Amino acid sequence: MELEEILKGIKPVDYKWIEKARKRTAQLVMPPRALGKLHEISERLCGIQKTLKPSVNRKAVLVMAGDHGVANEGVSAFPQEVTGEMIKTFLRGGAGINAISRQVGAEVWVVDMGIIPVLNPNAIQGGDRLLVHKIAGGTANLAQGAAMTRKEAEQAVVTGFQLATELFHKGVEILGTGDMGIGNTTPSAAIGTVIIGTTIDEMVGRGTGVDDQGLSRKIDAVRNGIQINQPDRKDGLDVLAKIGGFEIGGIAGCVLAGAFHNRPVVIDGFISTAGALVAHALCPQVADYMFAGHCSEESGHRAMLKYLELEPILDLGMRLGEGTGGALAMGIMEGALRVFNEVLTFEEAGVTDK
Amino acid sequence: MELEEILKGIKPVDYKWIEKARKRTAQLVMPPRALGKLHEISERLCGIQKTLKPSVNRKAVLVMAGDHGVANEGVSAFPQEVTGEMIKTFLRGGAGINAISRQVGAEVWVVDMGIIPVLNPNAIQGGDRLLVHKIAGGTANLAQGAAMTRKEAEQAVVTGFQLATELFHKGVEILGTGDMGIGNTTPSAAIGTVIIGTTIDEMVGRGTGVDDQGLSRKIDAVRNGIQINQPDRKDGLDVLAKIGGFEIGGIAGCVLAGAFHNRPVVIDGFISTAGALVAHALCPQVADYMFAGHCSEESGHRAMLKYLELEPILDLGMRLGEGTGGALAMGIMEGALRVFNEVLTFEEAGVTDK
Repeated sequence: MELEEILKGIKPVDYKWIEKARKRTAQLVMPPRALGKLHEISERLCGIQKTLKPSVNRKAVLVMAGDHGVANEGVSAFPQEVTGEMIKTFLRGGAGINAISRQVGAEVWVVDMGIIPVLNPNAIQGGDRLLVHKIAGGTANLAQGAAMTRKEAEQAVVTGFQLATELFHKGVEILGTGDMGIGNTTPSAAIGTVIIGTTIDEMVGRGTGVDDQGLSRKIDAVRNGIQINQPDRKDGLDVLAKIGGFEIGGIAGCVLAGAFHNRPVVIDGFISTAGALVAHALCPQVADYMFAGHCSEESGHRAMLKYLELEPILDLGMRLGEGTGGALAMGIMEGALRVFNEVLTFEEAGVTDK
Repeated sequence: MELEEILKGIKPVDYKWIEKARKRTAQLVMPPRALGKLHEISERLCGIQKTLKPSVNRKAVLVMAGDHGVANEGVSAFPQEVTGEMIKTFLRGGAGINAISRQVGAEVWVVDMGIIPVLNPNAIQGGDRLLVHKIAGGTANLAQGAAMTRKEAEQAVVTGFQLATELFHKGVEILGTGDMGIGNTTPSAAIGTVIIGTTIDEMVGRGTGVDDQGLSRKIDAVRNGIQINQPDRKDGLDVLAKIGGFEIGGIAGCVLAGAFHNRPVVIDGFISTAGALVAHALCPQVADYMFAGHCSEESGHRAMLKYLELEPILDLGMRLGEGTGGALAMGIMEGALRVFNEVLTFEEAGVTDK
């Protein structure tokens, strides 16, 4: 499917379903709206899925991976080979996202959107969970020019859309977005700065843990990247192409797919939300279909969520990425649906209402 | 067991286990402490259980129920018969705590600590989950005198301790405390005011949703209760007896039992934390063994948690009680343990450390 066609196919959530869901909530045997955000979550899920029997039983996380030319500027605490090494760890089931996904019962799929090493799924433990859609072996250095071409940016978004679409067609009812890519808080901070219009300092944080000098190099890289590339904040594809990353484009595609197919997408932290900002720039209606799994410890994340008008479900000082915050929040969301679907009404329970 | 013996048996958590756990966390294949509070949770659990293989696999919630003489002051939005009606709903599996407990895989047990109606477990659907330990058919009106005798207060605490102890002996690895009792935010607010030393206004909230007049009656009831009874804030049993409730005493006993048996106890919202304040007044070391499941929407709860130096795991605007916030947090805690137990080390994963 072409991007234009995707964008045309996205409609705002039908608020009639949310209103119907609020009426059901009002009948549940508890004081009015006594479970706070759990009610808002279940009602939004009713709106998205157009039902009063919402379900997030089948869950999946798509971990989008890519490498970044800007890593050459010394913006990360970890060397670039860690991207590929971590992908192997995901496939072995040994990383944070695997542990948390097992907790909530979510499948984990890993996508090579554009990492440097060439991985052969048939030769790797757990390789059946690796989807290779490499756009290139890492982006170009955004501090010196465009990270990718506009065509590559569109390819990244459409690839993410197609992979998410396949999962939805297989029966996945809720999708979490994850990321892996050494250096990827730098393009994410650049995207946040441009689309939201914050200062660079507000958006650049320590990522995996750079020291003061590394932080200063990150700030320089973002400043140079924006000055040299002059991305158009109203053109999501331009922003992605000039200062983004392949995995960030893939995440944007996942977000579009949720909105297109009436399925909830749970975004994770700083990088996932940068992807969401790109998707939102392409099509603001996507916000209706997104949930913010958590608020990251990465400094600019709160401003990103505020811009998207999303309230994070969790706030646990996490800053790992991989999709961990989104996956953990799926358990809360499923709990919210159990309340909605399983709690008796005052009438059914025979309890006196006030 | 006598209360005195219980209190003597409680030791502070051994911080050596927490230090050992921190060393393991530092080896996990992720940036240092990148999962924030999840690490703190898993490390505290190692300290409590004295192990580097912590488990919260078997979970239970004890919902303590009691009625309150102070309900006659018009302090609740719901009539008093709702206490007994809700107990039947819990036993049928149809309330909020049941739905959330199913989500996290926790057993729900309901305790009649002192409700007005006489319920026969053999004659009620799901009655095998009802434990009858009625101290009296509701407390006396705390606004006019002591809610119960000192002996009854001790009985409530020891009963809670014994019930929790039985669950731990059966293999329960983590216990959540819950409450049901129309009017019970009033004694909880009184306990908070006295033990913490806040103003009454700061501690009295709308509970299940009283209007302005009801709120004013609640404030009067708490003020009168404290003036007439003059509870000694340093004597937890005196506070419980004069301005408490049977279920609040039972919850205090659960908290003591966790500390006594080296098992984590997850407290819920305003009423559970009032019980925790009583336990803390009896034995400050209990704080080491407690987790705050969430921060309630009830206005005084945040000050209670601050006093106990507990950081809530969730903050979702919930104010239902029943144990719902604590139960929901158990899923997060189990996720934290999966990370601790299942994530590979840098060495195992063959990933380059920084």
